[in-house]
Amino acid sequence: MNLKNDLILRAARGESIERYPVWLMRQAGRILPEYRAVRSQLSGFKELVETPERAAEVTIQPVDLLDVDAAIIFSDILVVPEAMGLEYQMIEQKGPWFEQTIRSEEHLKFADANIDIDDRLGYVLEAIRITNKELNGRVPLIGFAGAPWTIFCYMVEGRGSKTFSESRKLLYTNSALAHELLGRITDVTIRYLKAQVKAGAHMLQLFDSWAGILGTEQYAEFGLKYISKIVDAIDEVPLTVFSKGAITSVEAIAKTNCNTVGLDWNMDVVAIRNLIGESRTLQGNLDPCALYASEKEVERQTVKMLDSFTSKRHIVNLGHGVYPDIDPEKVKTFIKTVKNYELRY
Amino acid sequence: MNLKNDLILRAARGESIERYPVWLMRQAGRILPEYRAVRSQLSGFKELVETPERAAEVTIQPVDLLDVDAAIIFSDILVVPEAMGLEYQMIEQKGPWFEQTIRSEEHLKFADANIDIDDRLGYVLEAIRITNKELNGRVPLIGFAGAPWTIFCYMVEGRGSKTFSESRKLLYTNSALAHELLGRITDVTIRYLKAQVKAGAHMLQLFDSWAGILGTEQYAEFGLKYISKIVDAIDEVPLTVFSKGAITSVEAIAKTNCNTVGLDWNMDVVAIRNLIGESRTLQGNLDPCALYASEKEVERQTVKMLDSFTSKRHIVNLGHGVYPDIDPEKVKTFIKTVKNYELRY
Repeated sequence: MNLKNDLILRAARGESIERYPVWLMRQAGRILPEYRAVRSQLSGFKELVETPERAAEVTIQPVDLLDVDAAIIFSDILVVPEAMGLEYQMIEQKGPWFEQTIRSEEHLKFADANIDIDDRLGYVLEAIRITNKELNGRVPLIGFAGAPWTIFCYMVEGRGSKTFSESRKLLYTNSALAHELLGRITDVTIRYLKAQVKAGAHMLQLFDSWAGILGTEQYAEFGLKYISKIVDAIDEVPLTVFSKGAITSVEAIAKTNCNTVGLDWNMDVVAIRNLIGESRTLQGNLDPCALYASEKEVERQTVKMLDSFTSKRHIVNLGHGVYPDIDPEKVKTFIKTVKNYELRY
Repeated sequence: MNLKNDLILRAARGESIERYPVWLMRQAGRILPEYRAVRSQLSGFKELVETPERAAEVTIQPVDLLDVDAAIIFSDILVVPEAMGLEYQMIEQKGPWFEQTIRSEEHLKFADANIDIDDRLGYVLEAIRITNKELNGRVPLIGFAGAPWTIFCYMVEGRGSKTFSESRKLLYTNSALAHELLGRITDVTIRYLKAQVKAGAHMLQLFDSWAGILGTEQYAEFGLKYISKIVDAIDEVPLTVFSKGAITSVEAIAKTNCNTVGLDWNMDVVAIRNLIGESRTLQGNLDPCALYASEKEVERQTVKMLDSFTSKRHIVNLGHGVYPDIDPEKVKTFIKTVKNYELRY
């Protein structure tokens, strides 16, 4: 299928672009009343993730309503640990919760790498196929997965945490077990991402939400090593690595074979561009809180960010998922401002 | 009173030392069974903070039991917003909770800067006096306060948060109100810290726990500006600034008139020393999770950190508060390893 708008793919590859492409992490979600309407008809978040027709519907909403340059499949990074044998619940106001965790060798039976992706994760692939059919080439569709370190954190901790100290403990007390588990997650993730591409994803993103809790050295050993394996295994489509908070590892991330490096809102675009040069595209990084400001101020903050770019290799986004109580009109102002901005490179 | 061990004060000032001094953030707390025994006799955390004799008792416990080179007064950073007019509760397993928050000009009546420190915070000053009397010069006593940005976060948000989006929202929607509130917190904090010194604190630390959620530019405007005012106002004793997660602001922190810069466990000591030179002492930064490892591994990790120092200007600590489930024996191994390490500078 020919894409009518492939701006984001060209930006990721460093090819010529007419303007910066723009999308938002969590654009398919609670900011849109239309999303909340669909969500309220279902039993919960997980039913939405697991019902391909409805997942496709909310995936397309921001393309219709916000005019973004890419859709991202509505799903969750925790579908992977669940597919491997660790069921989770999504508890309202609290987040994910796993009854079983992996803290010793005998728990590894709940982390099965030899799973059939179509069998266990077919609902995500089906959602991708439906979305693409309905999008009909209007914009590219982004597939995604959690990076192994972040998935490991949930499998060991069993829930969200500020410090993930159980997960980090394992790196000191049983690094062999940690590497075994990370290796298994990596294997499944590679097969899962390839299946997403086969189903129709035009681009991929790895989310490493808990990258920032490791020091540079440990992140190289337990995080980037496995991200590199994934990046090296995927050559079908452009891939973005978003390692939240891993500010001292940005240079190392840019040295992997990824196309795009995602930046937090608290990272300095200019400093990072100076550090990594022109070989990679950067994605981000307006402070999501800037969208609480007046329309005029949203415009001013967006232009200020765009003015700081010194290259065409940028995909515009926020530096984190859009916050659920943001007025969609402010999101539209952000997007319109990016689209009207005259490219200097 | 003459101090028998003033190692940490000399290290902070860059004077000659025989070995690196060592203490732990949260050393007076849940790791010690002796602390839990005292705590269980009282109604809760707040009663302990507000009872000078008991606060002094748990302050001294780690000096007796762990042989650290400094005591830090047992208290909480939230005593300041409470003294200004915002009462808080400490909810078990959940953390602090304020019924009232500051989100508009009319709420400023709950943030009174014209308070009598002795009247409102006399219990902390009394705890300092009792502690010093009982310590009898064995080691210096550290006083502390939250940095204005972190106190602001709690006063606006009313509780802990991963993103503190209400607090950051205010920076975009009403920066004048934000500056007014930060200014008031700063005024009270300066008077509070001076009162702590007068009561007997030999050294001070500012904790900016939420520094890392702001970008460099916003942290300069809403964080460091007020830290600088405090640092400039205190010339009686050495002062440490610990801005958690503010990795892109470390150079700017070192340019304030503080003596010591506290480092997270995920910051690279060598890189930061190269960046800031020899003009400031660094404090930190072993990963608190390293203390989950075997004694031999704790020793190895500690020596590895010490070997990375290229200066005498270091105060050894963890890169975060010690986790409550750490075995005190491992803490002792850490401390002993530091004390036995032969200084090369």
